[in-house]
Amino acid sequence: MPAYVPPLKEIRFVLDHLVGMADVAALPGFGDATPDMVDSILSEAAKIAEHTLAPLNEIGDRQGATLTADKTVRTADGWKDAWQTLIEGGWNGLPFDPEQGGTGLPNLLNTAVHEMWQSANMAFALCPMLTQGAVNAMRLYADDALKARYLPKMVSGEWTGTMNITEPQAGSDLAATRSRAVPNGDHFLVTGQKIFITYGDHDLTDNIIHLVLARLPDAPPGVKGISLFVVPKVLVNDDGSLGARNQVTCVSLEHKLGIHGSPTAVLSFGDEGGAIGWLVGQPNRGLECMFAMMNHARLNVAMQGLAIAERAYQQALGYARDRVQGKPVGWSGDGRFAIVHHPDVRRLLMGMKARIEAMRGLLYTAAAAVDVAHSHADPDERARAALLVDLLTPIAKGWCTETGQVIASDGVQVHGGMGFVEETGAAQHYRDARITTIYEGTTAIQANDLVNRKILRDGGAAVRGLLADIAALGRELGDSPDEALRLTGFALRDSVIHAGDAVEWLLTATGDARLPAAASAHLLELLGLVTGGWQLARAARVATSLLAGGAGDADAAFLSAKPLTARFFATQFLPRVAALRAAIVTGSGAVMALTDEQLFAA
Amino acid sequence: MPAYVPPLKEIRFVLDHLVGMADVAALPGFGDATPDMVDSILSEAAKIAEHTLAPLNEIGDRQGATLTADKTVRTADGWKDAWQTLIEGGWNGLPFDPEQGGTGLPNLLNTAVHEMWQSANMAFALCPMLTQGAVNAMRLYADDALKARYLPKMVSGEWTGTMNITEPQAGSDLAATRSRAVPNGDHFLVTGQKIFITYGDHDLTDNIIHLVLARLPDAPPGVKGISLFVVPKVLVNDDGSLGARNQVTCVSLEHKLGIHGSPTAVLSFGDEGGAIGWLVGQPNRGLECMFAMMNHARLNVAMQGLAIAERAYQQALGYARDRVQGKPVGWSGDGRFAIVHHPDVRRLLMGMKARIEAMRGLLYTAAAAVDVAHSHADPDERARAALLVDLLTPIAKGWCTETGQVIASDGVQVHGGMGFVEETGAAQHYRDARITTIYEGTTAIQANDLVNRKILRDGGAAVRGLLADIAALGRELGDSPDEALRLTGFALRDSVIHAGDAVEWLLTATGDARLPAAASAHLLELLGLVTGGWQLARAARVATSLLAGGAGDADAAFLSAKPLTARFFATQFLPRVAALRAAIVTGSGAVMALTDEQLFAA
Repeated sequence: MPAYVPPLKEIRFVLDHLVGMADVAALPGFGDATPDMVDSILSEAAKIAEHTLAPLNEIGDRQGATLTADKTVRTADGWKDAWQTLIEGGWNGLPFDPEQGGTGLPNLLNTAVHEMWQSANMAFALCPMLTQGAVNAMRLYADDALKARYLPKMVSGEWTGTMNITEPQAGSDLAATRSRAVPNGDHFLVTGQKIFITYGDHDLTDNIIHLVLARLPDAPPGVKGISLFVVPKVLVNDDGSLGARNQVTCVSLEHKLGIHGSPTAVLSFGDEGGAIGWLVGQPNRGLECMFAMMNHARLNVAMQGLAIAERAYQQALGYARDRVQGKPVGWSGDGRFAIVHHPDVRRLLMGMKARIEAMRGLLYTAAAAVDVAHSHADPDERARAALLVDLLTPIAKGWCTETGQVIASDGVQVHGGMGFVEETGAAQHYRDARITTIYEGTTAIQANDLVNRKILRDGGAAVRGLLADIAALGRELGDSPDEALRLTGFALRDSVIHAGDAVEWLLTATGDARLPAAASAHLLELLGLVTGGWQLARAARVATSLLAGGAGDADAAFLSAKPLTARFFATQFLPRVAALRAAIVTGSGAVMALTDEQLFAA
Repeated sequence: MPAYVPPLKEIRFVLDHLVGMADVAALPGFGDATPDMVDSILSEAAKIAEHTLAPLNEIGDRQGATLTADKTVRTADGWKDAWQTLIEGGWNGLPFDPEQGGTGLPNLLNTAVHEMWQSANMAFALCPMLTQGAVNAMRLYADDALKARYLPKMVSGEWTGTMNITEPQAGSDLAATRSRAVPNGDHFLVTGQKIFITYGDHDLTDNIIHLVLARLPDAPPGVKGISLFVVPKVLVNDDGSLGARNQVTCVSLEHKLGIHGSPTAVLSFGDEGGAIGWLVGQPNRGLECMFAMMNHARLNVAMQGLAIAERAYQQALGYARDRVQGKPVGWSGDGRFAIVHHPDVRRLLMGMKARIEAMRGLLYTAAAAVDVAHSHADPDERARAALLVDLLTPIAKGWCTETGQVIASDGVQVHGGMGFVEETGAAQHYRDARITTIYEGTTAIQANDLVNRKILRDGGAAVRGLLADIAALGRELGDSPDEALRLTGFALRDSVIHAGDAVEWLLTATGDARLPAAASAHLLELLGLVTGGWQLARAARVATSLLAGGAGDADAAFLSAKPLTARFFATQFLPRVAALRAAIVTGSGAVMALTDEQLFAA
């Protein structure tokens, strides 16, 4: 598999010029995020991604994770050492408070680090990603005793964390959760079976801290009767040493399409009476705690969409530069040329590149807003940023993962027949990417969240505000003397008008409650395109300013690509916004038109 | 893996009411194609698809084809018996002349049979598909002696056929072909290495007839110096018995993303001096002969796009009907419901169904035109039909395969987490489908063929004629009292206007020769959508007429679904046509805008 080279120049551009790394570093509590520290973190993380994690990606795919005879899970060759590298470098604790053993750096910087790790080895990077999510839930909801016992080693990465949500009958519908927790002295006895538990068992660490949704005996039915429990794989003694094995058994591992290196476990809790666990947060408020993990995970899975796209793009670009085949149209003279010069290959590559830059802008914007929402001194600023995070989370999760899959497929296509041969590596990205629109809430679940909780609940206030900002940028660029900026501005302005129409339709759709649901996935894609175009337009504007300010030659080529890339997206992708508006406004009624009998007829 | 049930009702509707099976059967030479015979062929083929081929699909995926120590290929358990079933039923010879041992039935009927076999087991059905293609090439170009020696057993399926085109350095660029053929008495000695040879070796039959592109010693360079040779795996004696092994060696098999059951071979010809072969057709005119196979193969691969989509749809629909999860919006009362009632799941399923019916209409229309082009008594009718086949072939290959992949992905999505687990079977369709946009010419190659040979070469005459027919249907339906027909008509009419704009832009694009190439894939997708919408509109019109004529109750539910399905496609998918027009007309200039330095910068 070809190497992965972290795109540090692109990442630095977004951090420094698009989302304001310096402003984020100046927020209260990030005193250590000096420019030197940021440089050093990025370059060290890049080295680990390129030299430690990326070479293990293909091995993980080939060997997978295996369940041994004694019901424990063995990861692929080299993975244990790689995890040790992360612990030793303190990488897992990067965004956490120093008082919990963390480094106290911004979520934004952690996001950049995780982009590189996800690109290098998505199956591996799931483990630190979920562990950080579990730390977040414990940090926010666990009592001091639980924090003292578990957090330091979860922050350091000596122990990993999991989310135990899904059961065979309870997927998207958590109301159907059946796992139970019965009080027993100072703890609870937890019983039940959980499926699809990522890193539910492994040999990277000597303990795993499971966060498990279960029902108390007196719990009300539905989602308001679910509580969260911490259930360690190995019980922890008062002195912090490891004690007896808890009743948590890995029953089996799934045989999956992709991310073979990541063990997906069926876990059985309490086979001999009950696994010992402790309540996290309030009784029956487990969903609230779970969403602390889940929202973290959703933005991180969105990042997987970007990351796998970047990896697929690098591989496809490399192949297209090397593969000599025929003479492209418009070329004179004899000889044969690399396929990167063929217009249709170029179109595919440009489409990959433009969407990757759009996604990076969007995800880093959300990541910076997470820091502002947590740390800004002004409560109004915090609230504004939190609103943006809430709105962008389902858009980012849905659009970046759907887009990542299309880009991974484009990467296969650029390779032609070699793309279908597993040794090439392009197919692994295609397989790995396919989970991202499913786990941590399918695209339909994101679309439902977007429509109901993020648009209808506030009467469209937040989305109208965002669209007004984007329209203002479109108008500004539409007045530019530069043609690329101007075309970008026109397209952006038009797309906001269509987006506004779609949102107003949604807000006024009455009568049939199924209409907003039938339109929701289209609206998500529409807003993904508009917010992606917004980020590229912002990048084009700032790059043009930097050029006007006299950037050096090396930067001139890089910066002058930004308006051209924005124009590409604006003219090749933004026209889809009008099509989505039409599908929403005139097409939603057609979705449920067939009777069951008509749909089911063979 | 869930069962496959051949959609005979849909197939019969298309055959009988959309493409005129009766008219095709009345063409000269198809005297045996009586209604009883057609019924019997379809129902017998359906049984084989459902009971013989479909159950072997998952076995083929799991076991794959394996290269044994003696350099021969073993297919999966049960595949040899299945092939024997096809031979014994005379299925391989269905569309061929009785004088060559065939049954003399229409290509249209053969197409319906192959739809079912491709849905049942795509990896298996490649073998009869390629064998029929090889028969076509031999039938048209081989001399009588070669025909006498090889054709009867290829027609019967006792021997299979292959296409040997690709070499490591010669993929899309056949000018780079290096394999050589040197005259040696009454035959030629062929040397060279060919890759990606589907069923290049196997154990289904005791001989394999390879058709191989190679260069004669005095051949001019480029594609005008390539000739076609027949090179049997085992030499055939004058009495028809098998003689010595020819110098054709299976060097290795590819480890592929999908269609594991189908061996994809690297073949080495003439390791000890030269494989014995004979010239097929004229020297240096090999490409012409190859296209006799290739055009057959392109429409058949287009059919794979439809077929895998149908299989994925049946599986997704079955899961959605069984999987109980939550209460859909707009439902009152308590309890839990199958996810098929959730609007977003319904939207995915309706999108699968509508596109499948559009593809089926398009492919059967092309298949019927193949029969008319070959067999009609009137040369003008033959020419008109041939023109339609030429125009529809790249559109069908490109659009149906791209669409088939999206539908296979939608099938995974409907399954949620279970879709990512291999045992479910949805992921196999997703993997298998991925080859279809690559082999027999990538989508870019189809788009290039469409733009250069099918549109620019005749100054747009054929495509304008087709669009005028579609516009007339749009106008007719736009005047209908029925709302679904009317909306379908409006959308179709609008889409033809956009299509016309895009075609006129293409015809007048001057200056930069790269512009048409940069726009070609979009134009292909655009014409796929318009011709797909055309087929659904035709189906809606005929169904409405049948209903007005007083169809029975069972048919009423089926027939009244047609206008609703057409409206769904018209309002959900046809709006994309305007977006593609915009990407073509205003976006093509952006494709090549970045310098190499800008594109290659990390």
